[in-house]
Amino acid sequence: MFTSRPIGFVTSPYKNTGEIPKGLGAKHEADGILNILPEFEPGLTDIEGFSHLIILWEFDRSQGFELLGAPPSDNRPHGVFATRSPRRPNPIGLTVVELLGREGNALRVRGVDMLDGTPILDLKPYLSSIPPENLRRGWIAEAEARRQNDYIS
Amino acid sequence: MFTSRPIGFVTSPYKNTGEIPKGLGAKHEADGILNILPEFEPGLTDIEGFSHLIILWEFDRSQGFELLGAPPSDNRPHGVFATRSPRRPNPIGLTVVELLGREGNALRVRGVDMLDGTPILDLKPYLSSIPPENLRRGWIAEAEARRQNDYIS
Repeated sequence: MFTSRPIGFVTSPYKNTGEIPKGLGAKHEADGILNILPEFEPGLTDIEGFSHLIILWEFDRSQGFELLGAPPSDNRPHGVFATRSPRRPNPIGLTVVELLGREGNALRVRGVDMLDGTPILDLKPYLSSIPPENLRRGWIAEAEARRQNDYIS
Repeated sequence: MFTSRPIGFVTSPYKNTGEIPKGLGAKHEADGILNILPEFEPGLTDIEGFSHLIILWEFDRSQGFELLGAPPSDNRPHGVFATRSPRRPNPIGLTVVELLGREGNALRVRGVDMLDGTPILDLKPYLSSIPPENLRRGWIAEAEARRQNDYIS
């Protein structure tokens, strides 16, 4: 077993999960603040130079896990490791945000998709992307295609 | 405090940290295997459809943390949250790998950069990329430019 503790908390416009855009084509453009605990502020040195950050955070209000489940974007079940479901064996969330600015230990970011008060476990600079032409998106692409067909037919 | 436990372990060619390519321009093209524990195998359903996976893992052989440190790619100190240093308040690593194939609970992947036997905490599908033209890479771009100048002068 490993233990982790919050390095800070998210200020987000979302007070309950129903407010968070979900499913295919959901846009995450909400602004939020990453409030890093003062004891960890030296760890933010130079972070302003990066346009995007990876936030690792705890799904602290999620209970238990489900290895097979139907995500909001599809009516078919998928393995939890092929989804972003909160009901994971280790309920760690990952969000890529745009860094808008820093004031001391507060980072203003765009693209939050977690609840207000969510504990932050780690921040990492986003360094490189997989070229879109090399990316296959499995059942998500298939579900999008089915939805497209539903619209046409 | 939050606790997490391994969902599996990595088979990697790297037996000690000195063997892992580090620093600017380091290429991570080593093949490895993600051995997921049998009890979690149903969570892999449909994962074959994705070309790339995000692995969250534990730096289980890293001790303590350092909020400011000089990474191998630069001789100047940077905040730990602006680096991929293993010496983090919560020692969680993140690696994006290409999924080559699956045999039961074993995933063959390319691009491992962790030690052999590393505990895996979570797998997530890699879904989208930040367009390279929108990405700023802070001190890393600066360190690359300085190194370039050193070659020229």
